[in-house]
Amino acid sequence: MMLLDILAPRSVAILGASDSPIKAGGRPIDYMRRFGFKGDIYPVNPHRRQIQGMPSYRQLTDLPAQPDIVIVSVASQDVVQAIDDSIAVGARAAVIYSSGFAELGAAGQKQQQELVERARAGGLRLFGPNTQGIANFRDGAVLHFSTMINENPPSDGPVAIVSQSGAGSAIIYGGLRRAGIGVRYMVATGNEADISAAEVVRAVVEDESIRAVLLYIEAMRNADALAEAACIAHARDIPILAVKAGRTRAGQLTASSHTGSLAGEDALTDAFFRQHGIVRLADFHELIEYSALFSSPYRPKGRKVVSISNSGATCVLAADAAEDHGLSLCEFSPSTISALKQVLPSYVTARNPIDMTTALLGQPEIYGKTLETLAQQQQADMIHIGFPIGGEGYDFSDFSVQTGSFMEHSGIPVTVSTNQDWVSNTFRVQNVPVFGSERSAMRGLALLENYVEMRDALRKEPGGIAPKKQNISAAAITLDEPSSLAALAAAHLPVVQHILCRSEADVRNAIAQMEGPLVAKGVSKNLAHKSEHKLVRLGIHTESEAIRAFNDFMAILNQLSVENGGMLLARQHHGDFELAIGAHLDPDYGPIVMVGQGGVLVEVLKDVQFLIAPFTERQAYDALLRLRIAPAFGEVRGMPAVNLHRITAMLTSLGDWMMHAQGAICSVDANPVIVARGDIDPVIVDAVVMGTGVPA
Amino acid sequence: MMLLDILAPRSVAILGASDSPIKAGGRPIDYMRRFGFKGDIYPVNPHRRQIQGMPSYRQLTDLPAQPDIVIVSVASQDVVQAIDDSIAVGARAAVIYSSGFAELGAAGQKQQQELVERARAGGLRLFGPNTQGIANFRDGAVLHFSTMINENPPSDGPVAIVSQSGAGSAIIYGGLRRAGIGVRYMVATGNEADISAAEVVRAVVEDESIRAVLLYIEAMRNADALAEAACIAHARDIPILAVKAGRTRAGQLTASSHTGSLAGEDALTDAFFRQHGIVRLADFHELIEYSALFSSPYRPKGRKVVSISNSGATCVLAADAAEDHGLSLCEFSPSTISALKQVLPSYVTARNPIDMTTALLGQPEIYGKTLETLAQQQQADMIHIGFPIGGEGYDFSDFSVQTGSFMEHSGIPVTVSTNQDWVSNTFRVQNVPVFGSERSAMRGLALLENYVEMRDALRKEPGGIAPKKQNISAAAITLDEPSSLAALAAAHLPVVQHILCRSEADVRNAIAQMEGPLVAKGVSKNLAHKSEHKLVRLGIHTESEAIRAFNDFMAILNQLSVENGGMLLARQHHGDFELAIGAHLDPDYGPIVMVGQGGVLVEVLKDVQFLIAPFTERQAYDALLRLRIAPAFGEVRGMPAVNLHRITAMLTSLGDWMMHAQGAICSVDANPVIVARGDIDPVIVDAVVMGTGVPA
Repeated sequence: MMLLDILAPRSVAILGASDSPIKAGGRPIDYMRRFGFKGDIYPVNPHRRQIQGMPSYRQLTDLPAQPDIVIVSVASQDVVQAIDDSIAVGARAAVIYSSGFAELGAAGQKQQQELVERARAGGLRLFGPNTQGIANFRDGAVLHFSTMINENPPSDGPVAIVSQSGAGSAIIYGGLRRAGIGVRYMVATGNEADISAAEVVRAVVEDESIRAVLLYIEAMRNADALAEAACIAHARDIPILAVKAGRTRAGQLTASSHTGSLAGEDALTDAFFRQHGIVRLADFHELIEYSALFSSPYRPKGRKVVSISNSGATCVLAADAAEDHGLSLCEFSPSTISALKQVLPSYVTARNPIDMTTALLGQPEIYGKTLETLAQQQQADMIHIGFPIGGEGYDFSDFSVQTGSFMEHSGIPVTVSTNQDWVSNTFRVQNVPVFGSERSAMRGLALLENYVEMRDALRKEPGGIAPKKQNISAAAITLDEPSSLAALAAAHLPVVQHILCRSEADVRNAIAQMEGPLVAKGVSKNLAHKSEHKLVRLGIHTESEAIRAFNDFMAILNQLSVENGGMLLARQHHGDFELAIGAHLDPDYGPIVMVGQGGVLVEVLKDVQFLIAPFTERQAYDALLRLRIAPAFGEVRGMPAVNLHRITAMLTSLGDWMMHAQGAICSVDANPVIVARGDIDPVIVDAVVMGTGVPA
Repeated sequence: MMLLDILAPRSVAILGASDSPIKAGGRPIDYMRRFGFKGDIYPVNPHRRQIQGMPSYRQLTDLPAQPDIVIVSVASQDVVQAIDDSIAVGARAAVIYSSGFAELGAAGQKQQQELVERARAGGLRLFGPNTQGIANFRDGAVLHFSTMINENPPSDGPVAIVSQSGAGSAIIYGGLRRAGIGVRYMVATGNEADISAAEVVRAVVEDESIRAVLLYIEAMRNADALAEAACIAHARDIPILAVKAGRTRAGQLTASSHTGSLAGEDALTDAFFRQHGIVRLADFHELIEYSALFSSPYRPKGRKVVSISNSGATCVLAADAAEDHGLSLCEFSPSTISALKQVLPSYVTARNPIDMTTALLGQPEIYGKTLETLAQQQQADMIHIGFPIGGEGYDFSDFSVQTGSFMEHSGIPVTVSTNQDWVSNTFRVQNVPVFGSERSAMRGLALLENYVEMRDALRKEPGGIAPKKQNISAAAITLDEPSSLAALAAAHLPVVQHILCRSEADVRNAIAQMEGPLVAKGVSKNLAHKSEHKLVRLGIHTESEAIRAFNDFMAILNQLSVENGGMLLARQHHGDFELAIGAHLDPDYGPIVMVGQGGVLVEVLKDVQFLIAPFTERQAYDALLRLRIAPAFGEVRGMPAVNLHRITAMLTSLGDWMMHAQGAICSVDANPVIVARGDIDPVIVDAVVMGTGVPA
């Protein structure tokens, strides 16, 4: 059975049903009856014949018909039996409210694993344990016990809430309902023993009525399902807004005791969301704040924004915010200026932002005419309206109706910022997205435009295969420098010209083939720190210099009693930048490629970007531009720019190699990579490769 | 008369008084009568005998007594007469509502200047023009025409609002009153022809009842008055929270048409606020959001924070936020853990953050006991409480009373984050600062601790003399490299050892005195780009190399027909970093010192920090640590750290030199400055000085 069907049950049994509508085992019964559930409700409680006026059953096996879903609201030690009974009666899924599993540590984790194994064997899907439940408000199927549903009665709508945290699902739900936004799904996945948040997102984007998905997670499980969900969502223009908590070390420690999650490296989550066009937000507050805008059908066609306000200060703050968020507060064209002059009184200047001062007092028609003029003149891809202050003489009901109908016929998104609730509410009832500050209203428009750009790029060049977990072998070996360089060269990466010499004859032969200056390095499998042992010599030009280095290095290597020593002769490169590139396997996201400022300062500068394989050339290019050092890559004082495409080619080759190795390469660490200005390939001059499936 | 006294008038005349209480000339009359003004109100209107039931006067000179303040609410062309009349009747100040002055451009600026000159000559202080007015709610002296006062009736309190924008003053006022916070002063300074916002802040910090000042400006005028205000404010522990809009190019253009302000470089505003312990915020929303916390008397004694919530997700988000904002979410000591175990039920783990899960349901006493334990164990310099969700069984009235009394007897600041208005309100009535998200609640605590640290540093080592406007001479000349280096050396800056040679004999003499390698540069007053003309030669060791360079350079200089050519011989330095340092005179802030990543990439990397002279050694040190390159200055891979004190000494010398020159040095541009690891002085190897009072 598809998960989307499971979210629309026709019959629900409640194990541990309560007669009290304010207890966890009683609330869903009360909610389903009050909020229009048309299916069958089967309370199960061995001690009662009636629950909330309905017949109650002693045990699951007594039910007159098969339930689609079983709510499990019993003590943790009784959950195994509940699972077995649910399987016995042919239920499709169980929603396990009970806590006391993975969130308590290793013992709980083991008990949880047992639940999963029994459920899998019996074909039963599980929500939770440790979940507040799931709800489908279209059908009144409210299998969720939050008090928030009581406080803010449901209304079906275009938003799906998917949250690992039960309180999180209710916080988002409450915020949306208070803002008048309708919600169809509210799913809390809890410990995610079986069904993950990613899988639920994958399901709800198939519902054609959904216009936005709000996601809260503390750990990334099933990144592949989320990638697939994002792909479907982009085709249907359904934005996924996501909060991934546990970003910091402190947050990760806390998450592990909350939902038993071990959170990964946060920069990878950033990379994953970016590559799959998922809009990352900071917290519940932001999910609620931006939901009206993203669930509306209007989308900008570019970055041009016009701001209009009745306050000059708001115009200044809006202009600051537009520039901060990379929007273009463009100057009006001469024809726009003359068209606006027809509309605006003489004391209002036709400039962007438009400071209306008192022009709208008692003259609401100026408002609509201004919007129309901007649309006709194609001066605005999006519009911000600031009404920070309203009082006598302002007809906000009229402004809000005009705004709603303007968006509808122009398709141009509008955000409004206000400070007074009564003003906000007049706009909200017309489905105009309202914000509490110019900054958030402007940021909303910028986030929306960023989403549209990601969506369009991914529609053209889809994220491709989802990242898969790779088998990380414990038996990986570390290759020495010559083998590492050879492996990278075989993978089509630009490595320095080099020859490994094991005899004086090798050295003579090598010198004959290479142009100086050269670098000589004493190498061996068992030796990590060459420079500490005086095994590096620069500026070698002649055969005699090379032979001398060889004999010196061999003497040192003999003294160190290392195996299989030799000397690597390589071209000595000079460039304008030292980068570092690398790759590793991540348990959540699979093969990862890294690029950043290299050299000895690599760890302290922390100027790195990550790419999750597979990635596109364009994504690699954008990653380079996000480096802090990036502005230096361009033309500076007459020096030519770096050809970044040669660097992106190296990164995509590395990504491809990692993908094709299917886990046989564990890590690559190449530093420095010498990069020169002009149309010149980068050169990897030092590298260490670890793996199981590379030639040693 | 002191400005603080002007803000407490005993009699007010209204020129352009209106019978209608909803017109600008009528509102203050209505407000003063309704909100308890005990002084005399004199409506003036040539066309009416009665205004709002009070006797009205034909002209100012008809009044029975001298008014302290005259409100001027007349057409712009009548303002000059109003000023003259106000002077004639002996008023202390005029509040000019009328617009149509500097905000309209050059002509309006000139008319505005005329007002100021007449007022100054007659001893009359001016608010505005283009202001919505001033208010002192302690006295009911509401000389402000915003409708917001009607919508949110005043209540005297610990906050002063000072805003260049009239709407801004009302937006802040409305937000504070809706949050239940009392306001004493609301002053809008408008075009600031005479009285600036800085001057008003300087005045209100003398009022002993004021606990926080909220400031909105679009231009920095009278930075010296604001610096003085900050100094007084720190002594009295009055935080100044400031928004300076027009941060961006777009915002600055917009500000110039709003209040006629030309905004300066925003990084300097950042530096000014930082050096004077003023808390910079982004917008009105944030001013309102953080006012309850900052106007409360509780201050943290360190960065240790404990977070407590009834939601695990909030614990995770709070932990993330704490780390983001540099707070220490410390682990509990063993004794704290055992003390907490006495208080908490077994299923609540005694770890930070404390996830209460359902422990507080029906047991409000656990809440207070937990707070007490944390205070007794000295585990918390500040506490965050997250109640993102509340329902049946939670006694928030009790929690809020317990929180208020806990703060009162422990002195520990507490912030609460909630998502439901009814929960927020129970805390607000107990004067507990409430926020809409964990992030803002945690950020508030971090901002408060940052303020305390700035305050304490400035109490110990005060900001000193306020920055003064320096006379920037138009007749400044640019010194050539030898003169520039000589000037900097005389100012005790570490410049490269160098000798200017005008003859072969000079060259021989120089070579005898200096150790190689040397760099030779052909120099002349009229020549900017040495390297383009092949006038730079590196690695000179011998007399013959130096003589050859001299002759080659002289030939080139002759060909270029430049005056007064010569050759500079200098030691060639190698280091680990290239910095740039500089100085200039800013019209708002006076002498500015800059330090940043130098070399050819200086303009593209934009990794610079500014210091406003005078500044302390500590401030210079902190500026260096704010550079993006800063982490590289420490010990890396066994290489020693850079001795930053040698760099700060150079910066303070440069600042001192600029101060003492009193405008005679216009700018200094030294790049590169060679910095090496270890305890070694930096070396300025190239510099250009511009000025009027330096030896040419």
